[in-house]
Amino acid sequence: MDQVDYINGQTRLYGIVGDPIVQVRSPEMVTHALQGRGLNAILVPLHVARADFASVVPQLMQLHNLDGLVVTIPYKTQALSLAHSLGLQAHAVGALNALARRRDGTWAGDMFDGMGCVQAFARRGFALRDRSVLLIGLGGAGSAIAAAVASEHPLRMHIWDLDPDRCRQSAAVIARLSPSTQVHVGPPHLDGVDVLMNASPVGMLKDARLPLVADALPPGLVVFDTIVYPEQTPLLQLARRSGCQVVTGREMMQGQIARIVDFFIQAQQGTTNPVVDR
Amino acid sequence: MDQVDYINGQTRLYGIVGDPIVQVRSPEMVTHALQGRGLNAILVPLHVARADFASVVPQLMQLHNLDGLVVTIPYKTQALSLAHSLGLQAHAVGALNALARRRDGTWAGDMFDGMGCVQAFARRGFALRDRSVLLIGLGGAGSAIAAAVASEHPLRMHIWDLDPDRCRQSAAVIARLSPSTQVHVGPPHLDGVDVLMNASPVGMLKDARLPLVADALPPGLVVFDTIVYPEQTPLLQLARRSGCQVVTGREMMQGQIARIVDFFIQAQQGTTNPVVDR
Repeated sequence: MDQVDYINGQTRLYGIVGDPIVQVRSPEMVTHALQGRGLNAILVPLHVARADFASVVPQLMQLHNLDGLVVTIPYKTQALSLAHSLGLQAHAVGALNALARRRDGTWAGDMFDGMGCVQAFARRGFALRDRSVLLIGLGGAGSAIAAAVASEHPLRMHIWDLDPDRCRQSAAVIARLSPSTQVHVGPPHLDGVDVLMNASPVGMLKDARLPLVADALPPGLVVFDTIVYPEQTPLLQLARRSGCQVVTGREMMQGQIARIVDFFIQAQQGTTNPVVDR
Repeated sequence: MDQVDYINGQTRLYGIVGDPIVQVRSPEMVTHALQGRGLNAILVPLHVARADFASVVPQLMQLHNLDGLVVTIPYKTQALSLAHSLGLQAHAVGALNALARRRDGTWAGDMFDGMGCVQAFARRGFALRDRSVLLIGLGGAGSAIAAAVASEHPLRMHIWDLDPDRCRQSAAVIARLSPSTQVHVGPPHLDGVDVLMNASPVGMLKDARLPLVADALPPGLVVFDTIVYPEQTPLLQLARRSGCQVVTGREMMQGQIARIVDFFIQAQQGTTNPVVDR
């Protein structure tokens, strides 16, 4: 009979909840990763309007064949209330972007926006422990990256955002997660820096600016940019010209997807270790 | 980047709601039909437990990118309460198996279990109008087939089920939908019959029985069986040996899928004509 081969009655469901939803990339990418692990599973877009989040999402979670959700803008903070237990990153950042049904029927939540960055460095074989990291931009992605990098216990973190409240909050998160890390807040400079991370929107799309003032970069610097479009931002172009090693936003996205799929599978196997019960 | 090509953030969602759900065929078959119409759309299994139907399904229908539901056992009657308007078949049978979001945001419901049978005959170029039809079995599928065949205005319908209540109910439905059709209730015989339809479970899987007593069938008879497994039931084997034209349960299933996809698309276009507002 006429049929497709990638979905059937036994397919396990995952979803991504957001508003808007048309721009998300998780359906095609997480589904690819789930199927790459040999699972009969699919991740579908779930467009939930802001007025409906509190009534719709808890009911979606009652579907017996739904095993996990990715949560995107504007629900990453609100979704905390849906988790029975939180991982270290979600607890530190005060937001989550993935919920997984555990074997006992409870839901675990965690935040992978920053862990994708750490994963991308790990895949390159580059350890952040004992390094000196400059992080520019502490919005949603940047504050999650600050927490995830702190969990790797770098020697020093120099952080900067135009909003002083964000600087204070991330400094406190870093101090809590890694008391041994030296935290500096202030406008970016490269003195003694091993790793430069841009989590600000500077350089996105047709923006030709750099997130810091520089004509060249030290060739030993490792340079990372969260921006996915374009893949080669002005900062990464300068880094390549300067002979620096480069880590891209796409690598972070791939790293995040790998970690979220691990999280989904481990929850099913009962092997997640949430640190905080809500 | 690593990704699949059949789902993304713009994909429109459809679902099939049932309990259990693993045995359903709509995900692979309706998805194939939706994509065959050029739509970026997918139908996913939605396993809703009986205790959750009333709380979960109305909230699912709030998803902005969900455009329709197929409803299966045990929810075909209960789902009537979710429709703002009903088609003729759903109204006649008192059950529905599809819900479609209309352009104005309301939901239309209709019952396609019987229309798939009529569609299968239409695809063979065989009109039921003015024919004499013997229908055996008046359960969920059989009662829907009785209503759908009646809407084609056959000359005569001879119906039979071991349950006398079912016989009375279907006879009343036929009389309402097609006052000109002669209705007979009683044990099956083939005198003057043009079309024999089996909607009883006799002959399913390894059941070697026939739904009526016969060593051979008149070669001019058209024989239809709702049973999908096996595709060649004992009744259809006898029919082929007797030189009869045969219509299979698989053809009904394909006919039903085509009609449901039409219903989904017409609702989006605002061209459905529900006859009853609830």
